[in-house]
Amino acid sequence: MITFADIRAAAARIGPAVHRTPVLTSATLDREFGASLFAKCENLQKCGAFKARGACNAVFALDEPGARAGVITHSSGNHGAALAYAAQTRGIPCTVVMPDTAPAVKVAAVQGYGARIHFCKAAERDAVCARLAAETGATLVHPFENPFVIAGQGTAALELIEQAGELDVVITPVGGGGLCAGSAVAVRALLPRAVMLGAEPLAVDDAARSMATGVRQGRVDGAKSWADGLMTGLGAPNFELLRRHEVRIVTVAEDAIVAACRFFAERMKIVVEPSGATVLAALRAIAGELRGKRVGLVLSGGNTDFAWLR
Amino acid sequence: MITFADIRAAAARIGPAVHRTPVLTSATLDREFGASLFAKCENLQKCGAFKARGACNAVFALDEPGARAGVITHSSGNHGAALAYAAQTRGIPCTVVMPDTAPAVKVAAVQGYGARIHFCKAAERDAVCARLAAETGATLVHPFENPFVIAGQGTAALELIEQAGELDVVITPVGGGGLCAGSAVAVRALLPRAVMLGAEPLAVDDAARSMATGVRQGRVDGAKSWADGLMTGLGAPNFELLRRHEVRIVTVAEDAIVAACRFFAERMKIVVEPSGATVLAALRAIAGELRGKRVGLVLSGGNTDFAWLR
Repeated sequence: MITFADIRAAAARIGPAVHRTPVLTSATLDREFGASLFAKCENLQKCGAFKARGACNAVFALDEPGARAGVITHSSGNHGAALAYAAQTRGIPCTVVMPDTAPAVKVAAVQGYGARIHFCKAAERDAVCARLAAETGATLVHPFENPFVIAGQGTAALELIEQAGELDVVITPVGGGGLCAGSAVAVRALLPRAVMLGAEPLAVDDAARSMATGVRQGRVDGAKSWADGLMTGLGAPNFELLRRHEVRIVTVAEDAIVAACRFFAERMKIVVEPSGATVLAALRAIAGELRGKRVGLVLSGGNTDFAWLR
Repeated sequence: MITFADIRAAAARIGPAVHRTPVLTSATLDREFGASLFAKCENLQKCGAFKARGACNAVFALDEPGARAGVITHSSGNHGAALAYAAQTRGIPCTVVMPDTAPAVKVAAVQGYGARIHFCKAAERDAVCARLAAETGATLVHPFENPFVIAGQGTAALELIEQAGELDVVITPVGGGGLCAGSAVAVRALLPRAVMLGAEPLAVDDAARSMATGVRQGRVDGAKSWADGLMTGLGAPNFELLRRHEVRIVTVAEDAIVAACRFFAERMKIVVEPSGATVLAALRAIAGELRGKRVGLVLSGGNTDFAWLR
């Protein structure tokens, strides 16, 4: 279980390699909610998502012999590119195991950061990744269960609080839960009375059901959501952290996610991927509770093909 | 002719009403150019464009009797909304004369800031505006020839230099020329040796031809450009300021403008309207001259219907 000290250490470790992303405000949003909203723009982060934080923390925390053997992961999304970026920054080898059906743009992103790509069948990714890690001695950096990754993601909320000041409510998206769990640790340490929220698509509501039942629910298979980054099931350590730090999950409908994406592009002039836009959709679902409050939103990323705009 | 003191005064006057917009950097851009680029995000400005600066300066500089009589303009674009915002902020009346063919979204933006809209035929806008100004005593705030507007726009470059530090090159778009002229004054005062550039669509290259011939050329009528904000002819005082401060105009092709818009959305995760994206297109046209330089770009606005994305 990570603590606030781990997040402080992560912030010091990753500082030079990541952006201190801006916190934007919007008079239109504040009027809509009758509240003061502060949007932490991790869509403007290195690699286009908060994932650069966790990946850098995990890679930079390796000791020298471990670092020389390199790192490996099986995430083809934002974490794959972020790990490749972190490894390139430290100058160590990185392998990303990808399904042979991965979109060309994701392959290009990982290659652009100099990582080696190992293609395999989608169903064999975990096994191939484990075998390669064993063969090469590379450290497997899990996208959301690695404690250094979780602590790294928590630095987004730490910075948001430093930049925006006192907050009554903080919200992040929830997929695997690394960002939400890390942020919850930072929020509890700095703002003990704040409400900590997680935004989750209704279509993949395993985190909401896990918190409601007290038992971690499995990943929802076969579901469809615009928020492709949140299709993952909630990770075990993150479930524990969400419980310990009393995180409340708010589920959101697909049309609300699309409307939130459009709002960010059309009114705030920033590109937020559907996974990140869930936080605005969730706040709108509980708008009645937010009047007069100071609310921090972590906009998790901006990597999108804009299909939601059509 | 405005001076740097006017820009300093404008900055103090408008400070509380406008955003100190962030300056973003991009490792991808820096790699592309072999240079250090600093993007001043006026697309994240109030009303979605730098126009809020000039409009606020003009409105806030009015004396009390003048202010009570209100302000009026015939711009239906970003300046119309910006003037409405400035007037609302000061609590004075504002009228925007618009052609009865104006898009609903522009009408809504102006109305949203509480301004009165006066519809008329497009060809009669100037005359109607002059008549209403005479009848009501309202101050006509020209979108780019009013000296307070020009000084206000110059605060964008002033802030950029404060935020990014020493720069070798600064570039803004050129339409009516208020932003470019105001910025040139700030750049010459703070960075006397810097190269000051203006980016202009080749399709409406009156500023380029004006500077080349030394005689202000008329607006190019009937041309088409993605950069709808730059279709205006270069204003008389701005032409003089561009000459005095040795601004070089770089013209850009339409496909280069669209490619630049896409780059900002897909890689930098920000929405930049085609008029604003011209600056990147222009830098790409002279990339060979920029290696090793520190380059500041003013991204003028983010108000767009995203047609260029399709």
